Amino acid sequence: MQQQIDTLVVAGVGLIGGSFALALKRAGRVKTVIGVGRTLANLEKALTLGVADEISQDIAAVAHRADMVLLASPVGQMGALMAALAPGLKPGAVVTDGGSTKSDVAALYRRHLPDHLPWCVPAHPIAGSDMSGAVAAQYGLYENRRVVLTPLEETAPAAVEAVADLWRACGAEIHCMDAAEHDAVFASVSHLPHLLAFAYVDRVAAKANAERCFDFAATGFRDFTRIAGSHPEMWTDISLANRDALLAELADYRCGLDRLAALLEAGDADGLNRLFGEARAARTRWHQQFLRRG
Amino acid sequence: MQQQIDTLVVAGVGLIGGSFALALKRAGRVKTVIGVGRTLANLEKALTLGVADEISQDIAAVAHRADMVLLASPVGQMGALMAALAPGLKPGAVVTDGGSTKSDVAALYRRHLPDHLPWCVPAHPIAGSDMSGAVAAQYGLYENRRVVLTPLEETAPAAVEAVADLWRACGAEIHCMDAAEHDAVFASVSHLPHLLAFAYVDRVAAKANAERCFDFAATGFRDFTRIAGSHPEMWTDISLANRDALLAELADYRCGLDRLAALLEAGDADGLNRLFGEARAARTRWHQQFLRRG
Repeated sequence: MQQQIDTLVVAGVGLIGGSFALALKRAGRVKTVIGVGRTLANLEKALTLGVADEISQDIAAVAHRADMVLLASPVGQMGALMAALAPGLKPGAVVTDGGSTKSDVAALYRRHLPDHLPWCVPAHPIAGSDMSGAVAAQYGLYENRRVVLTPLEETAPAAVEAVADLWRACGAEIHCMDAAEHDAVFASVSHLPHLLAFAYVDRVAAKANAERCFDFAATGFRDFTRIAGSHPEMWTDISLANRDALLAELADYRCGLDRLAALLEAGDADGLNRLFGEARAARTRWHQQFLRRG
Repeated sequence: MQQQIDTLVVAGVGLIGGSFALALKRAGRVKTVIGVGRTLANLEKALTLGVADEISQDIAAVAHRADMVLLASPVGQMGALMAALAPGLKPGAVVTDGGSTKSDVAALYRRHLPDHLPWCVPAHPIAGSDMSGAVAAQYGLYENRRVVLTPLEETAPAAVEAVADLWRACGAEIHCMDAAEHDAVFASVSHLPHLLAFAYVDRVAAKANAERCFDFAATGFRDFTRIAGSHPEMWTDISLANRDALLAELADYRCGLDRLAALLEAGDADGLNRLFGEARAARTRWHQQFLRRG
């Protein structure tokens, strides 16, 4: 059954929320998008760009009109948004989110929307980017991308299906998993590399010869550090939300660096060659699979 | 004065050497390219692709014909190549290289070509890639790229100018600096990130849930790990050649990770936000400069 939404409230009209709105409008699945946010300039931009049909800085004031709500703000703001939504929400209005961590967001749903849990569908669209704001929104962002749903025990199958169907209308592929597994997997393949890239750029920038260094940084540096251009507040929230998994990842990674330093110190060419060769083989295998995914 | 080369010997017909040969042929600056290497299949490929006009597995046998030699092999092979060249080289035949480290290559020139130093021009074309072999060679690789020359005290200005002129004919921009400074700068902006990326992929691949992790790795992972697809032998050589600078970089980076872990552990949102924000600002400034470079 194709979901049709009369009124979609998107809280946080940036890359994630704005692109969801645009894709659903193009697919004819939504009549009215209400963009909600803190920054008036960004909301007005969203209106100008046709990402939203109406705008508001007060989610409580528009809660009663929502047939669906997408919380696409940084995770740190989601609790307050849910609390503001709670009194006004119609029964059956589906609430979903675009948060990059899921155990903590599940806890927020339980805390702030305890009577609404059958219609709460925690979700994570995997479409990171270093761009933000309404200007970053794009129609095709979710084509061939994955969206992970981590339904609560209480979530009604119909609510899961409603959210899944809309994401499919955006071109995405749906995967369901447990929130804890989600958080462990993403700590490893997304959150840790972001922290490593931020830390790396921070160290280069602090060098006495930083200017000279940046001057000769080239394409390898460019790609390795792209994710260090990501949104600081969003990544602060993600880091703290997934803190335990990330601390474990950091500790494991530092063991890896210790091992590498020991090989270097020992001048162990065979050991280095083996480590680099295995890493390259794993990366090449992964990349072939990734390209096949489309 | 435009350099014209009758016979160019390229030892190591891969991305670096092959692209140099192709660009000089297109510019009409070279008559005959002799490709030298260990692997016959790759040399035959170079012949088929028009990267080389003649091929040989024995650099000693063709040394006397060279007007210029480009050593584009991994740095670990360069000493042996220089030793094999030494007896046959014509006086005035310029020897240059494409090694990513320069202090160690300078020492090799001194050791293996002590009577030829006025015509030895250590160089580093900055055009890394995760591709290798003759098939990776491309005409335009060096357009708007930088080539760093680190002449020896003994190097004749005319030899520096000859090499600089040919690189300019490939579209590159020439910079001269001291070998030690070169190695410190590149440890920081190239060698360290390669090691970090290799170590990262190695740790992910070693996980119990590696398959699940790789399955959800997306574009951030793709870009962050691209350089982990680089040539293992080449990076073993670079790592060992620039070992001291790299060990210092690794130690510094581990301090950065310790600081990050401490902020996380303390739940210090402001501290994380500041670190991420400063890194992002530095990366954004760098990227704007990089784009302006062309």
